[in-house]
Amino acid sequence: MKNPITRRIFLAASAVSLLPAATASVLPGQGGLMSVLNEADTTGTAPHEDWRHTGVLDLSKSPYARLRTIPIAAVTIREGFWQKRRQTNVQSSIPSMHDELLAHGRMDNFLRLQGKSDAPQRGPVYSDSDIYKWLEAVGFALQSGNNPQLRSTAETMIREVAAVQERGGYLNTYYVGDRRDLRMLPQTQETGHELYCIGHLLQASVAFYRATGDETLLDAGIRFVDEFLLPGYGPGANQKPIVAGHPEIEMALIELYRTTGNRRYLELSGYILHGDSRIPLTPRQITYMFCGIPFTSRTKLEGHAVRAMYACCGAADYYLETGDPEYWKTLNLLWEDLSQHQIYITGGVGARAQGEAFGDAYELPNARAYGESCAAIGNMMWNWRMLAATGDARFGDVIERALYNGINSGMSLDGTTYCYRNPLAFDPASGDRIRNPWYDTTCCPPNLERTLASLPGYFYSTSDSGIYVHLYDNSEMNWRLHDGTGLKIVQTTRYPWEGEVQLDVSPAQPAEFVLYVRIPRWSQQNRVQVNGKAIAGAEPGRYLAIRRRWDAGDRVIVALDMTPRILRANPAVTENTGRVAFQRGPIVFCMEGLDQSSPPSQRNLAGYSVRTSGKTSAAYDPALLEGVVVLAHEGSQEQAPPSGSLYYSAETSPPSAIPATLKLIPYYAWANRQPSEMQVWIPYIRP
Amino acid sequence: MKNPITRRIFLAASAVSLLPAATASVLPGQGGLMSVLNEADTTGTAPHEDWRHTGVLDLSKSPYARLRTIPIAAVTIREGFWQKRRQTNVQSSIPSMHDELLAHGRMDNFLRLQGKSDAPQRGPVYSDSDIYKWLEAVGFALQSGNNPQLRSTAETMIREVAAVQERGGYLNTYYVGDRRDLRMLPQTQETGHELYCIGHLLQASVAFYRATGDETLLDAGIRFVDEFLLPGYGPGANQKPIVAGHPEIEMALIELYRTTGNRRYLELSGYILHGDSRIPLTPRQITYMFCGIPFTSRTKLEGHAVRAMYACCGAADYYLETGDPEYWKTLNLLWEDLSQHQIYITGGVGARAQGEAFGDAYELPNARAYGESCAAIGNMMWNWRMLAATGDARFGDVIERALYNGINSGMSLDGTTYCYRNPLAFDPASGDRIRNPWYDTTCCPPNLERTLASLPGYFYSTSDSGIYVHLYDNSEMNWRLHDGTGLKIVQTTRYPWEGEVQLDVSPAQPAEFVLYVRIPRWSQQNRVQVNGKAIAGAEPGRYLAIRRRWDAGDRVIVALDMTPRILRANPAVTENTGRVAFQRGPIVFCMEGLDQSSPPSQRNLAGYSVRTSGKTSAAYDPALLEGVVVLAHEGSQEQAPPSGSLYYSAETSPPSAIPATLKLIPYYAWANRQPSEMQVWIPYIRP
Repeated sequence: MKNPITRRIFLAASAVSLLPAATASVLPGQGGLMSVLNEADTTGTAPHEDWRHTGVLDLSKSPYARLRTIPIAAVTIREGFWQKRRQTNVQSSIPSMHDELLAHGRMDNFLRLQGKSDAPQRGPVYSDSDIYKWLEAVGFALQSGNNPQLRSTAETMIREVAAVQERGGYLNTYYVGDRRDLRMLPQTQETGHELYCIGHLLQASVAFYRATGDETLLDAGIRFVDEFLLPGYGPGANQKPIVAGHPEIEMALIELYRTTGNRRYLELSGYILHGDSRIPLTPRQITYMFCGIPFTSRTKLEGHAVRAMYACCGAADYYLETGDPEYWKTLNLLWEDLSQHQIYITGGVGARAQGEAFGDAYELPNARAYGESCAAIGNMMWNWRMLAATGDARFGDVIERALYNGINSGMSLDGTTYCYRNPLAFDPASGDRIRNPWYDTTCCPPNLERTLASLPGYFYSTSDSGIYVHLYDNSEMNWRLHDGTGLKIVQTTRYPWEGEVQLDVSPAQPAEFVLYVRIPRWSQQNRVQVNGKAIAGAEPGRYLAIRRRWDAGDRVIVALDMTPRILRANPAVTENTGRVAFQRGPIVFCMEGLDQSSPPSQRNLAGYSVRTSGKTSAAYDPALLEGVVVLAHEGSQEQAPPSGSLYYSAETSPPSAIPATLKLIPYYAWANRQPSEMQVWIPYIRP
Repeated sequence: MKNPITRRIFLAASAVSLLPAATASVLPGQGGLMSVLNEADTTGTAPHEDWRHTGVLDLSKSPYARLRTIPIAAVTIREGFWQKRRQTNVQSSIPSMHDELLAHGRMDNFLRLQGKSDAPQRGPVYSDSDIYKWLEAVGFALQSGNNPQLRSTAETMIREVAAVQERGGYLNTYYVGDRRDLRMLPQTQETGHELYCIGHLLQASVAFYRATGDETLLDAGIRFVDEFLLPGYGPGANQKPIVAGHPEIEMALIELYRTTGNRRYLELSGYILHGDSRIPLTPRQITYMFCGIPFTSRTKLEGHAVRAMYACCGAADYYLETGDPEYWKTLNLLWEDLSQHQIYITGGVGARAQGEAFGDAYELPNARAYGESCAAIGNMMWNWRMLAATGDARFGDVIERALYNGINSGMSLDGTTYCYRNPLAFDPASGDRIRNPWYDTTCCPPNLERTLASLPGYFYSTSDSGIYVHLYDNSEMNWRLHDGTGLKIVQTTRYPWEGEVQLDVSPAQPAEFVLYVRIPRWSQQNRVQVNGKAIAGAEPGRYLAIRRRWDAGDRVIVALDMTPRILRANPAVTENTGRVAFQRGPIVFCMEGLDQSSPPSQRNLAGYSVRTSGKTSAAYDPALLEGVVVLAHEGSQEQAPPSGSLYYSAETSPPSAIPATLKLIPYYAWANRQPSEMQVWIPYIRP
């Protein structure tokens, strides 16, 4: 395959529609836009390198995307909050994870099949996906700038992957030898993760292709789909039934469709999202796997949280391409369930360890919280798609909440250890080691890496009427509006530690368009100025639309409300009765025992309460945890009675307390020092 | 073996002392007592049936036992709180557990070795102990009265067990065939539970012997010890090293010593308690196994909770026989650690699931509590020995706390399902099934059964000066004082639901002695009368010593203080900050969601707080949970704001609450209806 565009056109002509008649014809011609984009390229790349003109997703031709992603390469994040994390990601996390993957035999699984390794198969059934997710992280990292060593390492690994692809397109290192006969049996599809692995291969291949133009892995993925999957599986009488098992293939096929134009990939994704009734599933499987029945029959989030989130991503992608109203209805129903019943204050989702699953409505335990890093990432990815469909800031709020908190917590500050679980209270005495360099199911570490690597792609979107600013950090964007007008935006800020963001907006020539500025829901009092003049209408949880004729040198100041907020949970969250949490800007805070005034020990959150009528002060400490704002709030610490007893009568030994100032750090930075108790939800004294 | 007494005398003469010189000669002659006991038998059994003259333990000749146990057969529990549980135990639990044991191949393990079963080995390495613990439960049950069917079933099983004992005394169904060479290797002793299984065999054999005089199992146990263990293992140059691995053998050997008089069993127990330095252990093993180093070097409770409790039982038994002051010092140090830092309000111990272990001081999480039923039982067994050594009521307080709460919770009201864990907060949505008929590690169910079966033995002790009353329930005791005076005590009470206990004290002839009446620590205001005349001096947490000349028809009334108490935890127990617990009499209470006024659902403890200044009312409900006192207390239920949001600002949406009456049931009875949230520690509103 030398030219995916050619392939796209060829295959589009031969495609047999699997879609319901009502939605099969909704894709309008979009050819005109691509030529405009090519001609107006302002990123300095050659005008015909199509593979660069894409972002986290390629929504440039998605008919139901109100917003379009912009290339990752178009946004350069400058020194500030995320630059440090992203440097750590590329300099420490990605390389150390590479070594871990090799040390745990994940590449040996490929080499053995070529006679280059004697090592036996290692790792769980989905181990190939570890390599693919890592390659995707590299692909995204390379989209922000070349890194010859990383690229060379990845290219070598890609060659080893492609080398084990079989005649007929099949590619998986687990279902070989004695297990060959199990391939794609219904029960293997349910639990064997073959399509999950290929989904990650496709996502990696697309990211790597968009970074480098290298089609090796993309070609392997297309061969799997074209030669193995499409001919063998689907609704046809001669085709076998198909089920995702662990959703992932759905969104990957749609991104492959966006990359190649081959509509059969979209159609197959739609077929998988619909479910194949020829594979009978138990109610438990239907709940746990979040696939196998029509996506549009779902009414709530349930089952395995990562599966559910990835299914929602695939369904949202399907909506962006087809506009199917049933999908949109279901996606919104599930989103309401998410925001009303299922999301942790950190943006994490999936409360239960058992089955790594969503709990019941309001089942949000703290110490027992699962909150898998991958699920928070899936949540962000889903909301990114919902945001693209609507431009509705509520989705941006979820992205920000998850990104700064429940995702960011997943990687240690030094980038070498990772959380699989992200609990909201912790006692190191429990014996859990919360940050580890390796998990045998190592889904989370490379998932965190690909998220940080792709982050510049989440800052902006374009729409027919202008440009959306979603995230704030020191950065420079160079891109163009839909009409081709080149546009540069420079952000200068100390966000998320301070609320003021300066946006220098410089179109290549004066142009009228709308600058959509996201006002986070947590920001109650907002001031926005353009060239020193106040702009009215900024509302929490909305994009402020600033329509005007913009010219080079225009300066927008957005001043968000960084007043620390004391939050309560809906009383239905039983564990949080009598407790409050602190948030300032997008950052959710927590107490770690070692920061309190008691003598340091692992167990030192003893007896602390906050007085909610008190004041919260905030101060930046450059020396703490690589620089964080620390909150201080008045409260008290209950004292043990002189007897030192373990239990005593509240009547005869009424509680006595001494004043104490509680110190809080950002949740994402917890567990980066010696082990210590931690809590997000803190008991409060009711006045 | 036809006469254990003969055997005792014979072996005592040939014993080589393993004890330190300082403690080897502390056993004074006690022969006189036995003849007195035999002559004064009031239980209606033949006077020379020595095997009946024993209780939970046989402390009749223990020189450092201040209190002596009395036979289980000497106490008949009448209709009331425990009779119901004990009937359920014999009619439902013991028979259904028998069927479970057979269904899970536990007897097949014995039958297979005789060619009577084709089933492969099943169950973990310690599976033989399941059978032994069940046999011990039957043994104790038969001490309270014959049950021909149960006895016949047990005798058959005992024959099958004895039939697989090898020439040379070895007896274990796991270390056979290919695993034969692993027997008693140091690493097998550390993890293989051979001695643990034999310990349970010995305890079962003693209980069965004391019930029936049948020596079959006792003989097998003695053969294991005499022919296999003593010759092969110990400090001698020709002996191999020995370590308990899972403590249990220590107390079993001492009870065997008490039963047979063979002092070598006591000495071997002492050697094991001291630890054999020829088996090097890692610090982690030393912590986890709670054995292998001198018991007297321990300074705190740590590691596997059941191991630690059983080690303390063995060490306390060793003290009761030898009076070794170092043991006594260590036992008291560990007991202070227990009561100051490690015991749940329910009497449960062992906070951590990981390693089923004690946590750090004050590490007492609620929902994550482990609190294994076996550990609470071990706690009761240890405190029974400490009580025997001292007559100090603080040990009786722990026994009562554990028995009524953290042990009693372990068996369902219908007797067919069991808790392995006994958490203090629970959300059924977590997916845990808390009560199950079977666990593959089924240590807890038969342990609960043997505890209920042996319960009459815990009601009284005798001392040189009189008789101790430890537990209260409708019952009749027929036994005798140390001077041989026959004594009957009839208790009439509605304890634990009401605080008044009537004790009708009837010596066979008028006699001066002390009646020691336990005043529980929780009972603040106490009234005691003898024949209608008030007796002064009743203090919480002490035995009230009533010395007088007693005559038939004397009536003592003990009126304990059943005022519901609101308890706080030491602030160092982080999770309990801002929470209180309720206790009335010996019963700890909890809230189950389904009892509250909200619409019933699995998640219905939402937003409830108690107002500690309010009043608690108590009422007996005969229709609820087989009859329990229910507490009601004023409080409130926080209301969700109209938005229905999951999180909201405490400032802009201050909490609103409606008055609510909280309903509490006894903790032991939780999880006996449909699944529901549960909590022992309840948020409170500070006035």
